Amino acid sequence: MKKDLRETKKVGDHWKKGERAMGKGYTGQVLRVNLSDGKINIEHPNDSFYRTYFGGRGLIAYYLYREVPAKADPLGPENKLIFATGPLTGLPVAGSGRNSVGAKSPLTGGYGDAEAGGFWGAELKRAGFDAIIVEGQSPAPVYLWVHDGEAEIRPAEHLWGRLTADVEKAIKEELGDPYVRVAQIGPAGEKLVRYATVVNDLTHFAGRSGLGAVMGSKRLRAIAVRGHKNVEVADAAKLRELARWMGENYQQLAGGLYEYGTAGGVVSLSLSGGLPTRNFQQGSFEGAEKISGQAMRESILVDRDNCFACPIRCKRVVKVEGPYSVDPVYGGPEYETVAALGSNCGVDDLKAIAKGNERCAALGLDTISTGVAISFAMEAFEKGILTRRDTEGIELRFGNAEALLTMIEKIAARQGLGDLLAEGVKRAAEKIGGGAEELAIHVKGQEVPMHEPRLKHALGVGYAFSPTGADHVHNIHDTAYTREGASLREARSLGILTTLPADYLGPEKIRLLYYEVNWRHFMNLAELCVFVPWTREQVVEMMKAATGWNTSIWELAKAGERVINLTRLFNLREGFSDADDRIPRRFFTAFSDGPLQGKAIPPEAFAAARQLYYEMLGWDAKGHPTPAKLHELGLGWLLEGAESH
Amino acid sequence: MKKDLRETKKVGDHWKKGERAMGKGYTGQVLRVNLSDGKINIEHPNDSFYRTYFGGRGLIAYYLYREVPAKADPLGPENKLIFATGPLTGLPVAGSGRNSVGAKSPLTGGYGDAEAGGFWGAELKRAGFDAIIVEGQSPAPVYLWVHDGEAEIRPAEHLWGRLTADVEKAIKEELGDPYVRVAQIGPAGEKLVRYATVVNDLTHFAGRSGLGAVMGSKRLRAIAVRGHKNVEVADAAKLRELARWMGENYQQLAGGLYEYGTAGGVVSLSLSGGLPTRNFQQGSFEGAEKISGQAMRESILVDRDNCFACPIRCKRVVKVEGPYSVDPVYGGPEYETVAALGSNCGVDDLKAIAKGNERCAALGLDTISTGVAISFAMEAFEKGILTRRDTEGIELRFGNAEALLTMIEKIAARQGLGDLLAEGVKRAAEKIGGGAEELAIHVKGQEVPMHEPRLKHALGVGYAFSPTGADHVHNIHDTAYTREGASLREARSLGILTTLPADYLGPEKIRLLYYEVNWRHFMNLAELCVFVPWTREQVVEMMKAATGWNTSIWELAKAGERVINLTRLFNLREGFSDADDRIPRRFFTAFSDGPLQGKAIPPEAFAAARQLYYEMLGWDAKGHPTPAKLHELGLGWLLEGAESH
Repeated sequence: MKKDLRETKKVGDHWKKGERAMGKGYTGQVLRVNLSDGKINIEHPNDSFYRTYFGGRGLIAYYLYREVPAKADPLGPENKLIFATGPLTGLPVAGSGRNSVGAKSPLTGGYGDAEAGGFWGAELKRAGFDAIIVEGQSPAPVYLWVHDGEAEIRPAEHLWGRLTADVEKAIKEELGDPYVRVAQIGPAGEKLVRYATVVNDLTHFAGRSGLGAVMGSKRLRAIAVRGHKNVEVADAAKLRELARWMGENYQQLAGGLYEYGTAGGVVSLSLSGGLPTRNFQQGSFEGAEKISGQAMRESILVDRDNCFACPIRCKRVVKVEGPYSVDPVYGGPEYETVAALGSNCGVDDLKAIAKGNERCAALGLDTISTGVAISFAMEAFEKGILTRRDTEGIELRFGNAEALLTMIEKIAARQGLGDLLAEGVKRAAEKIGGGAEELAIHVKGQEVPMHEPRLKHALGVGYAFSPTGADHVHNIHDTAYTREGASLREARSLGILTTLPADYLGPEKIRLLYYEVNWRHFMNLAELCVFVPWTREQVVEMMKAATGWNTSIWELAKAGERVINLTRLFNLREGFSDADDRIPRRFFTAFSDGPLQGKAIPPEAFAAARQLYYEMLGWDAKGHPTPAKLHELGLGWLLEGAESH
Repeated sequence: MKKDLRETKKVGDHWKKGERAMGKGYTGQVLRVNLSDGKINIEHPNDSFYRTYFGGRGLIAYYLYREVPAKADPLGPENKLIFATGPLTGLPVAGSGRNSVGAKSPLTGGYGDAEAGGFWGAELKRAGFDAIIVEGQSPAPVYLWVHDGEAEIRPAEHLWGRLTADVEKAIKEELGDPYVRVAQIGPAGEKLVRYATVVNDLTHFAGRSGLGAVMGSKRLRAIAVRGHKNVEVADAAKLRELARWMGENYQQLAGGLYEYGTAGGVVSLSLSGGLPTRNFQQGSFEGAEKISGQAMRESILVDRDNCFACPIRCKRVVKVEGPYSVDPVYGGPEYETVAALGSNCGVDDLKAIAKGNERCAALGLDTISTGVAISFAMEAFEKGILTRRDTEGIELRFGNAEALLTMIEKIAARQGLGDLLAEGVKRAAEKIGGGAEELAIHVKGQEVPMHEPRLKHALGVGYAFSPTGADHVHNIHDTAYTREGASLREARSLGILTTLPADYLGPEKIRLLYYEVNWRHFMNLAELCVFVPWTREQVVEMMKAATGWNTSIWELAKAGERVINLTRLFNLREGFSDADDRIPRRFFTAFSDGPLQGKAIPPEAFAAARQLYYEMLGWDAKGHPTPAKLHELGLGWLLEGAESH
């Protein structure tokens, strides 16, 4: 490596030429940065490329499939780390403050990506870019500075090892602009913890898939962005109209999210038996009320926060002074964190959970995987599979909040048992042996999020199927379809006419799964938040207004299905098979107590449902997309091995 | 048969109770009339039934599959004849004046139906019914009188054998109401000509599938309807808004249809080589200008006519005094008739074509099948397969207008060679032998309409695939997608992004075929005319306004796909297989002259396209719908053999 990467490098300002002007079709810019040789290029995909892959997982899957060689080391220079916005990112409508980060996952060895909210994605668009492709591996720590159509690689040795808030502050000072937005890894990413996150704006996380480790392996500590360009749209008045509508209706439609945050449902979930508790051994937690969004509001909540352009303010800001000191700069815990560090570790101390959340944000750890890794270790300890010697004397039992906080530090530092848990529960269990595998609650190596498939059976099929391993974002939550309400009304618009029991796994449920997972994938391509109560119809209007395309629910749902197939092909090429589309045995084992006592997913029904899902997707019995399905989705070029299409 | 069916029978007036009121969901009434025992019943399907099967082909396929036993004689009492409207029939928006008629087809032996425009369907809705199911077989000629929620069976011996205009006049006089609308058969239906039509309002035809013969076999000469009830809708203001929009825009969008009618494209079609000429031996006709819509306007056109609520007035009214006398009460020839009786019989005499059209209307013959049957005989005569003895001395050569008109009479009367041709070209050719099969241009026994698959290759795949045999309504016309325009714009809204050559049969074309044929099936379910230039989006708005359902393009296209599968299952049960999904060898044989000289459909490309289409539909390699596809479409009840669903 002869080139000094710390020398800054500037590129042109093509974006100023107005290629995105609607008269010339919908176009944009992709920034490509090679950290091995320091080369920076700007690419200009055309309208039909954007209309095929859209954004988010679509762009990421396209580039990964095309450019990352099969069997590449996720933590080696051949892997690529891609930051992608969508056609709605940065537009003045609620839910548009999102972007995705993707790479081959060091956690699963397959397709990996994650979404985050916040302000970073909108800023990237304002800087003139839809996506950044990071290639190669820098010989020394660097960060990337992207601003108004330009990009430069800057040294970051002085930032290495520091907490995320320190780094964000330092970069803003260094660049002399407090409005710079920073996406970064923390020390956990530097240490290649396999579920390290990419953090942006300190309180937003592309949490899953271990993308922070990929970023760490490239020695890229951060990407700072700043732009002054308004994102051009085809119909600004329509977007304003939609924004006004949501401004007038969000309180009625999503007031609970403002009031209690995403953890507002903890108590009712516990009562229904679907709150993951003590490493998914139980579904109901006696301390649920103490860790709920309601309790948070009454105790440690000091403010609410939002993402770009969103009035809902579902994000929490908490402050704790004792016994733990929690800095509000890191926001506050969301539902996934409350359950992962709380009920699932048997911890009912909200302040400890808040502290854990703050440390995961500062260190750059995914709270879901972190919580599940620790709950796995707790169960192993209680069952004698791990001993006090393994834990270096820690009494690693469920409910031990101090042990939880200590283990977070050890994982981030890859110290002691933390080094093992930093590999994720799948690898850790394989190494530990002695029955530990039964306690490792993961799918394809990714720890299961805080949604109980024994309550929501099709969610379990969705877990098995997801290209990134267990995933709750691109999935259905069966309980929403058991009664009249927004979800069922939206499902009805696709032709699902009746309510469906949560524990029903028959054909009509799989039809729902097929339709809705396609759509949820489209929501990712658009980079629109699923919490904002837009109807599908409004999303189509929004897409039309943003792009000028005369699109439809049909086209957009098919775009979602397209990327499902693209990620599937990526995983098949990496050696995944139908045998990997499975969920932990625990979910086939009945609860021994609680509201769902005696309930489990029937294995035969699960197997039949999975096969039916394959078939509905147009896949063969082994889960391979058929040529006809690829052709139907405009992915025929993948069959012919053509260079481009 | 002890019961005297001529005794009138009255039923209740359930419809007055307002069950269709939107607050109670979308409901309606189906009239069931058994002509064997004279029983009349009214059924009240619920909202979810209507939202699954909608109308038209949906209702017909449902009832036929459920109620007509496999292998039933199409002309026997077990067959059922169904008249069905759709959710849009009778609403005050252009294109809504349509209804379907269906039965097991005596022409193909498989699923049969046909659509007609006019006013009869709207009147049936105003009388309180969405559909009429006619069962059994009357011992003597009858007609059905349906009015304001009531129905009675009335004697029709005095009408039997008379021309359609006489019968319509007689019924109106008899019922004492000039606003009664009449759907009826003519003498050809009475004589069980296998392509006899059901005529309504004298100038509108449910032409294909031989439904007039089914009606004749039941000795049902006519159904007269009259209603005074406005069709209830969920959002009348929205419908008025749409109607106003079309009122303001139809001239710009569809002015040619007003000006020249559907035959306005004859000359350009001939120039492109796609005008069926001399039994599809050629694609270009030297007399094209003489028979064009332009020539018609300059000569015999005396008025234009319309369907219910439609401002476009594409229908022709012609008057001829010599050498043929043509009565304007029967309207005038549309494109299919101009080509079938004109170019395809080598006839360039527009007045003779107009006379042929008038006689087909008066006698109740499908002009397409009639024209193709005669052109078949002309070619056979010219090739010596039929002799002057077979034709009873007629010089049955292409271009002989007198012979054409004589043969129409002979077919309707089943006299001489006409009796053989009345069986359709498939049966006639089998009987004639001596190579006649090569000249019989049909699919599944139904004569090919006036669209040349060597110009439009995917249309050929659509012909092969259609459940009713060769069909131009639920099909794509490839040439529309070779350039920017309304069709491509609409295709783009489904994600088909590029223009596609008309002779291209690759995957992207089959994707287009799959998407568009699904949609065209939905247009049939809604009973909306494909000539009216509504966008897909406007159709969705219309459906919402009509029904109150929060529906979408997705749901509606899937409803189209649903009925495709239902009709497929009907045909499979009747013994059809993939071997029947074929087109005449002629279309694989190159034109020897004309603009498409040397052009044919490549057989290998055709075979591959058909298989790909099967696969895109979710069918197996033999063209059987898979269980997953049926489940996805809510047709799982067909797999389980359940009584209802």
